[in-house]
Amino acid sequence: MNGLGIDIGGTKIAYALINNQGEIISEVKKTATPKTLDEIYNTLKNIIDSCSEFEFYAIATAGAVNRENTCVIGSTGNLPYGYNTIDFKSLSDKKMFIENDANCAAWAEYKIGASKGYENSIMLTLGTGVGGGIIVDSRLLKGKSGAAGEMHFVMSRKDERACTCGFHDCYEAYASGNGLRKTAVEIFNDENITTYDVVDLAKKNDERALLALKTWQNDIALGIVGLVNIFDPDCIVLSGSMEKFINTNEVEEFVNKNIVTTPTRVFHAKAGNYSGMIGAVLLANDKINKT
Amino acid sequence: MNGLGIDIGGTKIAYALINNQGEIISEVKKTATPKTLDEIYNTLKNIIDSCSEFEFYAIATAGAVNRENTCVIGSTGNLPYGYNTIDFKSLSDKKMFIENDANCAAWAEYKIGASKGYENSIMLTLGTGVGGGIIVDSRLLKGKSGAAGEMHFVMSRKDERACTCGFHDCYEAYASGNGLRKTAVEIFNDENITTYDVVDLAKKNDERALLALKTWQNDIALGIVGLVNIFDPDCIVLSGSMEKFINTNEVEEFVNKNIVTTPTRVFHAKAGNYSGMIGAVLLANDKINKT
Repeated sequence: MNGLGIDIGGTKIAYALINNQGEIISEVKKTATPKTLDEIYNTLKNIIDSCSEFEFYAIATAGAVNRENTCVIGSTGNLPYGYNTIDFKSLSDKKMFIENDANCAAWAEYKIGASKGYENSIMLTLGTGVGGGIIVDSRLLKGKSGAAGEMHFVMSRKDERACTCGFHDCYEAYASGNGLRKTAVEIFNDENITTYDVVDLAKKNDERALLALKTWQNDIALGIVGLVNIFDPDCIVLSGSMEKFINTNEVEEFVNKNIVTTPTRVFHAKAGNYSGMIGAVLLANDKINKT
Repeated sequence: MNGLGIDIGGTKIAYALINNQGEIISEVKKTATPKTLDEIYNTLKNIIDSCSEFEFYAIATAGAVNRENTCVIGSTGNLPYGYNTIDFKSLSDKKMFIENDANCAAWAEYKIGASKGYENSIMLTLGTGVGGGIIVDSRLLKGKSGAAGEMHFVMSRKDERACTCGFHDCYEAYASGNGLRKTAVEIFNDENITTYDVVDLAKKNDERALLALKTWQNDIALGIVGLVNIFDPDCIVLSGSMEKFINTNEVEEFVNKNIVTTPTRVFHAKAGNYSGMIGAVLLANDKINKT
């Protein structure tokens, strides 16, 4: 069955037709994410009404999604207040499926990407924040309400670094692009340094920039040690805009040296920029086939 | 079906007949764990040969157990070197099942104890070390090799406190009884203070002892915040010799104030001192019924 995959992010909504092999079979179209609930609803309705030749629509969205894959639960930072009240099912008479975007991307990696064939994996999306999608025995880890996979576990017992979640010293506050910036601020002793500055300076072999990147990568690896001890996964997949700055061989070596469980692999993601909508369609396909 | 439950720990081997409701239906017998492999094997053989009226034997053991529940994998700190080479299946013609003791205890809590009826839970055994048993969607989290559930995730990026696993600053190094001792050593500035001293002094309202206990409980809660964000569980169950010193209401309040997922519960364990062998028999029963 072909599905209409829709990826709703804080800045863009992207969509395309995708077949049951996870192949994109139409042009990928994009539009800016509107600022109000009504506009988001109407934009989605227009997208769905303008397409044909699909049997269901599958949404990959920012925010936690319930276990039944019917609605968003709780608040979602980058989307308007009340986003979780949108009735996605009412957009069309066709079958609807919705899942968190990091979970979708993890599923795409499992079905067609870097973790293909591995029954136990953890995907970390390293961008402005850190997203997580965890697969246990070939099933997405959802938890009691659907909100599992949040990469907010402390890297310090002391109140050293605030996190966007309101708590302190979460993995996200170290492993994200914003975490790299904060690490660089400490090393350069300069509040105004940006993530881009660090990357640019590192290309010029600036020692402090290289130290910032190394410290950031080490923090990422430290968190992975814990995740591997908890989950004993076949592999870790790194995705997102920041993952290209990671040396996965170095991380894998560090992790395997320091875990108490059995050796794991660390991979770069392979499912591409549209892994969210691809994973949504593949998940929907599995769910529809089961029911 | 009645099973012979056997709990193999570093100091004691305990065993009893247990029915399919998790009820102990014979006297619980105990013997010291021998120091050599041959003696352990012979002790187990004598135990099994001396019992009758059971259809399978189920072993709860220290150490990681493979996914097939047939053997121990890797090394096991408190048991003789080579323990993982013991051929438990050859002990008897009856059906054999083996699982990690913390996993067994978590299963007992899920079937007849504090987390009964909850499909997603995490059990933390707070003793000399910290054991973990994680249940996801009513299934034990085993990971690729069976070693999942190890509570070794860092609480500090800096090398502040060595862990028994060879790494530094793991949750176990803070949340265990030994972690309480280390916290007390820092607070009292006295290398010789013991966990017992702290507990005794706290009963006499010694301020430093109370601070050590409070700091220890707070470290336990900090780790639980991360686990709840990762797993979104229905509940956390605390067991082991140290759990009686925890105020679960305080921990629950702290956790629910600081997570990004949905509220959870924190409970004292209820399945008793023999939850390991009870869980082993209940798990074996489920597995034998399935096959």
